[in-house]
Parts: sequence; C-alpha cells; structure tokens
Amino acid sequence: MSKRPGKLVIIGGAEDKKGDMEILREVVRLAGGKHARIVVMTVATELPIEVGADYIEIFDKIGVADVRMFDVSTREAANANSAIKAVEDATCVFFTGGDQVRVTKLLGGTRMDAALHKRYEEGMVLAGTSAGASMMSNTMIVSGVGETNPKIGIVEMAPGMEFVPGVVIDQHFAQRGRYGRLFSAVAQYPHHLGLGIDENTAIVVDGQEFEVIGEGAVSVIDAGRLSYTNLEQVRTGDDLALCGVTVHILPKGHRFHLRDRAPLLQQDKANTSEPTRGVDNE
Amino acid sequence: MSKRPGKLVIIGGAEDKKGDMEILREVVRLAGGKHARIVVMTVATELPIEVGADYIEIFDKIGVADVRMFDVSTREAANANSAIKAVEDATCVFFTGGDQVRVTKLLGGTRMDAALHKRYEEGMVLAGTSAGASMMSNTMIVSGVGETNPKIGIVEMAPGMEFVPGVVIDQHFAQRGRYGRLFSAVAQYPHHLGLGIDENTAIVVDGQEFEVIGEGAVSVIDAGRLSYTNLEQVRTGDDLALCGVTVHILPKGHRFHLRDRAPLLQQDKANTSEPTRGVDNE
Repeated sequence: MSKRPGKLVIIGGAEDKKGDMEILREVVRLAGGKHARIVVMTVATELPIEVGADYIEIFDKIGVADVRMFDVSTREAANANSAIKAVEDATCVFFTGGDQVRVTKLLGGTRMDAALHKRYEEGMVLAGTSAGASMMSNTMIVSGVGETNPKIGIVEMAPGMEFVPGVVIDQHFAQRGRYGRLFSAVAQYPHHLGLGIDENTAIVVDGQEFEVIGEGAVSVIDAGRLSYTNLEQVRTGDDLALCGVTVHILPKGHRFHLRDRAPLLQQDKANTSEPTRGVDNE
Repeated sequence: MSKRPGKLVIIGGAEDKKGDMEILREVVRLAGGKHARIVVMTVATELPIEVGADYIEIFDKIGVADVRMFDVSTREAANANSAIKAVEDATCVFFTGGDQVRVTKLLGGTRMDAALHKRYEEGMVLAGTSAGASMMSNTMIVSGVGETNPKIGIVEMAPGMEFVPGVVIDQHFAQRGRYGRLFSAVAQYPHHLGLGIDENTAIVVDGQEFEVIGEGAVSVIDAGRLSYTNLEQVRTGDDLALCGVTVHILPKGHRFHLRDRAPLLQQDKANTSEPTRGVDNE
C-alpha cells in the first residue's frame, strides 16, 4: 500500500451542487472516479440527515456507486468500532459544513481521529467545505467578525484537526468581507500563512503544494515579512496596524508552495519534483 | 498669502455625525475652528437640500459661524461668478457624498474647478466624503462590484478632479468588502497606490504624507512590486491572478508617505521635514 499521503480538497463553502459541480467532480476524480468509496461526514452540522442526504444524492448523480453517510454526535460514537470501519475502506472522507468546533470537540483525540490521519497518510483523499475546510489546519478560526478592519479580539482561534500545518484557513472569503479577520489572525502569529478561500473555490493540497480550482480565488496572506505592527501595544477591541504584508491572489489553475511561501509560476507546472520559485522569492 | 497647499481630508463615508464627530471636528479645526468659513458642496448628490441642510446643522453645532451650502446642478452654474465667489472666501470646501461622476461631469474644466485648485494651492482645506473622497484623485473609481475576488471588468475607472496624484481611492472599504475591486484597480496600473478607506475613517493629506484619523483603518495596496499577474492573458469577466502585492493596514494615528510608498513609523512623527522610511523600504 502506498505511503504517499493523500490529497486534501479544502473548499471555501457554497460549492456548486447543481451546475457543472467542478469541485465535487474533482473530489470524486481524485477519490477514484466511479470506483470511489466516499464517506460523507456530517459531524460539523446539527442537521446531519438533511445535509448528508444532499451530498449522497450529488455524489450518486456524479456516478459514485459507494457513497455513505457517517454522523458523529457523541465522542463515544467516534471511538466505536463502526467509526473506524467507516473510514477504513473509504477512498475519500468528505466533511460537510456546520460548526468547526463540533468537529474538533467530537473527533479530537478519538479513534476516528487517529484513523483519519492514518488513512490520509496512506493516500486517502480528505475533503471539507466551510467548517470542514477550517478544521483542516493545526490552528483554526473558530469565529470572527466580517466587514471590519483588523482588530484585536475580532477573531477567535482554537486548535484544529492538524491535517495541514503552517496555515490558517478562512472560507466564504470575498463574499463575507473577511480580509480584516484573516489579517488579524496571521498578525498574531505570522508563521501562519492566511488562506482566504472564496465560495465555490477550493485548493487541492498535495504535499507542500496546492492548486486552486473552482470559480473564485484564494487570497494568500503572508505576514512573514511584516515590517511594523502595533500588536504589542494594543488591547482587545483596538485597531491593528500591519505594515508590509504580502498578498497573493490566485484564481483557478494557479499554484502555491506552502513552505517556500511563494506562488509557483504556470511554466513550473510540468515540473512537480523540484518546484521553481516565483520571482518574488529571490 | 501662503502658497503652501492646503490639506485634503478624504473620508471613507458614513462619518460620525451624532457622537464625538471626530472627523468633522478635525475638518473644522484645520479650516480655522470657529473662524472657519465652510462651503458645503452638494454637487455629487441629487438631494442637495436634504444633504446640505444636514451638514450645515452639524458644522453649526460644532461652532462654525460661517457655513453655507453651494449646489451645482448644471455646468453653467459652475461657470457663473457666484461659483467663484463661493469658493474665493472659504477656508474649506466640503464635498458631500453622492455620485462621483456628477462631480467630474458638472465641475470638470469649469471656472469653479480652476478656483478650487487655485484656492487649494493657496492653503484652503478640501474635504470630501464617499463620492467626495473618490473624486479627489487623478484617476477615480466610478463604480464596481463588492464582495468578489479581483476580476477584469468589475471596476470602472474615469478621470478624477486631480487633487492628489498617484492614488486610487475607495471608500466604505471594509464595510462593503471592496478589497477585490481595489486590487483590480491597482493591477491595471500599479503606479497607483490603492487607498481603501473604511467608514468613519479619513486621511488628512499634507503634501506627500497622510495621517489616518477616525474609527477604522486605511488599507494601502501597493502593486509596485507585483511579481506575477495574468493581466495580459485575460478578458472581461476573467479572474485576476496577482502575486506579490504589498498591503499596509493603518488605523488612527498612523502615517504614510505617498511618493516613498512607505509607512512612516510613529517615532518619525516629530520629524516632518525629513521623513524616515519604514523598515520595509530598504
């Protein structure tokens, strides 16, 4: 069995479910096409029946023969043998939207959690939309305020499910005016790259690289070269000053190298073994 | 008479008119306090009576003895002697919100236009909010779409009133999710610094420097070091890729040097004759 980790498909919410379904079709393709075995994980939502049934219908329509739903509403359920079994044979686990804290609260540290990591390391595709996107990182945004300038205290962070290190993910990004809160999040720890994923947009993460698919764009916010901030002098509610933040806007087809914190140019696309850095990365 | 140009107060709209009125009080202070002679210019709005009366009441409340309204609804009116006279004795002309195209269409190239420039060069304060902010630059945003990723064709530009060069101003910035459209605007001509001014927030421009006042922040978008863009390959409606854009977020009290394209650190504040550059500007 391959020990190459699987791919992550991290979706900014509101992915198309009625038209060409570009993103969900790509999830299916990566998971093995019609031979895919997809588990729709509804742990994030309080409406598992409705949300789960929707995705089962969609994946069925796309042509996946083996799609089933698995809900976790207690930690006991996530420690049961049935939980392990659900993940063991899947080629893809798809996390629906809802509340990302439900994911970490109900799955964190359970046998299901361990099984998800094991299967991901073995090559299983892990996909998530909205809350299911936010929970992918080591540190995640729990909640926050939109349509505001960056401030202390407008974004609440918590540990995530640790599938992708070094990033903080925000979703429904352009649509809900979330630049301010993502700037606030990365300012607090510039090690984290902020990934603002628009609706009906996703990144497909393969090791240190990701590629954008879907309709909108992904905004990468890099505070690594922050030249000035007033972070040390301000308190909750105060406005943040941030100088020298780098932003990359990447629509469909554009790629990025996470560890190098640099876009990968189009011509590098053929060469995946030794990515060439973008010119801003001299 | 002093030949030092006056100050510009460029307001991101929705400035406080009932509470401490920080921004409008600063306009009054700069214009001479209770000795200020303020002309409320309602050219941008189709409701000059209502909008004008509001500001007259406010400036009166702040303690300005001489505040009057001047409306221009035809180019003839902007070429009349009364138009010149209105501006000639003012210490401040305050442009209300409305539609920025009305400002350029009705004032552009008129005697009033010339008189405004002459008086500004002589030291008169020029203030404007919302549409009255947008029109200040050489190239202005006429209209655009909010809450979207940057795309070709989502922002319409036109010549402005040319009071401040080298910038494109957007207002109601965080509140209306306008990062995408301002990124689109500066991508098309990276010579322009994008200034995204939040509601109840303003910049006070003094020569090449500005300082932020008010409640929110000003986002400075600098595409001068753009490392990659797909601009040449895309058409109207297509998504823009932009890599290596620098963003500065500046709340109240923070300053910026326009020509140097660099924030001015707090400690430089005393030293206005020879501004020291921010550390990101080596």
